[in-house]
Amino acid sequence: MEKDPALRLRVFDLNCWAIRYLSKRRQERIHLIGDWLCQEGFDLVLLQEIWSECDYNDLKAKLGGCCPFSHYFRSGVIGSGLCVFSKFPILDTLLYQYSLNGYPYMLQHGDWFCGKSVGLVVVRIAEITFNIYVTHLHAEYSREKDTYLPHRVVQAWELAQFIRHTAKAADVVLLGGDLNMHPGDVGIRLLRGWTGLQDAFTEAKHFVGCKDGCTLIPNNCFTVKSELQPFPLGVRIDYIFYKAVSSFTVKCEELRTTTGTVPGMDIPYSDHEAVMAILCIQRRGPTADVTIGTAMPVLAEVLSEARTEVCMGLLAARRQRYSSGRMAVLAMLLLLLQAVGVLGVLGGLVAGQPFPALSFSLLAFLALAILLLAAGLHLFYSIEVKMLQGTEEQMEMAMRGLQEQPLHCH
Amino acid sequence: MEKDPALRLRVFDLNCWAIRYLSKRRQERIHLIGDWLCQEGFDLVLLQEIWSECDYNDLKAKLGGCCPFSHYFRSGVIGSGLCVFSKFPILDTLLYQYSLNGYPYMLQHGDWFCGKSVGLVVVRIAEITFNIYVTHLHAEYSREKDTYLPHRVVQAWELAQFIRHTAKAADVVLLGGDLNMHPGDVGIRLLRGWTGLQDAFTEAKHFVGCKDGCTLIPNNCFTVKSELQPFPLGVRIDYIFYKAVSSFTVKCEELRTTTGTVPGMDIPYSDHEAVMAILCIQRRGPTADVTIGTAMPVLAEVLSEARTEVCMGLLAARRQRYSSGRMAVLAMLLLLLQAVGVLGVLGGLVAGQPFPALSFSLLAFLALAILLLAAGLHLFYSIEVKMLQGTEEQMEMAMRGLQEQPLHCH
Repeated sequence: MEKDPALRLRVFDLNCWAIRYLSKRRQERIHLIGDWLCQEGFDLVLLQEIWSECDYNDLKAKLGGCCPFSHYFRSGVIGSGLCVFSKFPILDTLLYQYSLNGYPYMLQHGDWFCGKSVGLVVVRIAEITFNIYVTHLHAEYSREKDTYLPHRVVQAWELAQFIRHTAKAADVVLLGGDLNMHPGDVGIRLLRGWTGLQDAFTEAKHFVGCKDGCTLIPNNCFTVKSELQPFPLGVRIDYIFYKAVSSFTVKCEELRTTTGTVPGMDIPYSDHEAVMAILCIQRRGPTADVTIGTAMPVLAEVLSEARTEVCMGLLAARRQRYSSGRMAVLAMLLLLLQAVGVLGVLGGLVAGQPFPALSFSLLAFLALAILLLAAGLHLFYSIEVKMLQGTEEQMEMAMRGLQEQPLHCH
Repeated sequence: MEKDPALRLRVFDLNCWAIRYLSKRRQERIHLIGDWLCQEGFDLVLLQEIWSECDYNDLKAKLGGCCPFSHYFRSGVIGSGLCVFSKFPILDTLLYQYSLNGYPYMLQHGDWFCGKSVGLVVVRIAEITFNIYVTHLHAEYSREKDTYLPHRVVQAWELAQFIRHTAKAADVVLLGGDLNMHPGDVGIRLLRGWTGLQDAFTEAKHFVGCKDGCTLIPNNCFTVKSELQPFPLGVRIDYIFYKAVSSFTVKCEELRTTTGTVPGMDIPYSDHEAVMAILCIQRRGPTADVTIGTAMPVLAEVLSEARTEVCMGLLAARRQRYSSGRMAVLAMLLLLLQAVGVLGVLGGLVAGQPFPALSFSLLAFLALAILLLAAGLHLFYSIEVKMLQGTEEQMEMAMRGLQEQPLHCH
């Protein structure tokens, strides 16, 4: 069985930072990325932050020769930013939008509008079925006071659940993307523990690139230096993960990252470094079914840690739901009071005009605006509470399952 | 192989119409449903429109003896309304929220707020893995002028895709729910054709219940008679579908529906009739893999029909996106004009007060309200356009796949 020739697959992953009007030298970089991908001839290209369909179409035209098959995942107002190019025909696709993804009023962060999702494409190469996932999780804007942590943990959990449920018939699972989490963060441990995915960086036989495999480095002229101050070497937040489900083995022969500025140019491809892996897939004899990557007690601990984060988020969301509800009620009361005043004047009950009309109207104006905003927020926080509760329950069920499993299996 | 004892499974499905404050005699009916389920002892109970968690908890307490395992699916502002009770342990769950589900401003229809979804629970009975899906699609408020048809077709497509991708390792697939479509509707044909699911009603050896298996009947005192006028017998919109994926066969021995009023009472359980199936699951020798239920040319035709509906929806959504954008721009211009006027007065450029303050403020008030609303709508329609486009592309890819398949397989 071991004599089957191994399949070598070259996988490319990059967060392209292609935000229209905002990203620096966007079109130039997209051209550079396209040229480079053409020249290197990867088998699979997983891209994030391709927000504009024009950029996708440019890349598609350029990669027509080496990666003739592609898919652009649409979601949210702006899109998911995710796309996949492939040397092999894409047989099927599915998009799963995360239930939580930041707050609509955090306009400066903007994650909410992107409809952060995980995209799946199914590809068959040499009789091997590949489930290939590409994703981009909510950014971490401050590591000390990370208000988005519960949302990111929910996303990591939903990502893990989506992969587990959809990859059951796949021979090989690949996941590439900007997970916005450091290798030791609870979300990464949860994702890896719950799916059994392996990290191409730690498994690679041979590595060339930034120290510790960092993908956000101070050397890159587009990174925000102040954010990287606590990490002089940079951070690793872009990953290629893999796993063989049935009778296959996957090994990472080589992992490379870019290291800032493109050789011969004055700019890098993006504010992130690209991750490139050479994977070696080989058929082997039938083995035991479903292995969960992490030992049970460790996994139970990670689950419990993740659940704590979700519970913290739940407390905060409940508090905010209450405050926004109270604000809406107060604004409504003010409006009612004013309506009674106006009716009094119109009905002639009150002689003359008790208030100056302009400030009276401005106040009503303000009250209405607050009412609309507060009601909208209340609705939003209600959904947040629901989703956090749901995730917490699912995690609880998973923990119960883990505790019961040894009785059934061993 | 045929000698393996058959597994008999009793499945129950009901849209419970349990909307707090709105549904008539809700609590009384929930009690009746709980008592009845206890008495009958079904193996699997799939419920929709259990909007209040209190009602779920009441049922859970009541069914603790016969169906000790259960799951309530949370989503949207109000929830998904979906829950499952089971005699057998629930091993895993997943919720997929449909990307389109009506319009937030259609308050009288309210579907948007419910976060319509499909819920999956995984159950293992006698060494057989069951993927059990429960769902509730967008209601059809008018059959002649069904503005929600594109959304419902997108939901049917997403439901089919979700089932296909998540059920690959299941032995038996069950789907129960209120699909809000008649048996011959394009969405039903698409769902069945694309997943290979069989209709328990048409396959049943023995049927007892309303004529033609109708589940919304004029005989039920809670149904809106005017809506059923074109259908004197009623309509069939609640289904139990099934499919055996691997080396199993599923047969429907008996299908029953309720027929309006509960015997000995003056009310029915709900405004829908319950659907109850006895399924017989048997192991058989290994058979050919993956069979698509409908013949290729028929399936291609259904796909093309569904795609036409999605394209019609896309045209309408683009039109509405344009109108709402134009409205927002006009409101903004009016506000700017007023701001210039106010500045003129404050700066002393214009002598005196050119407009009465009250009507001036009211106008500004109105312009702001219109601006906020129109901008919100524009955002919403942008998402709608994205999702319809994405579905259209997926359907196109599926059609291409169908056309190419005969070359590879036959």
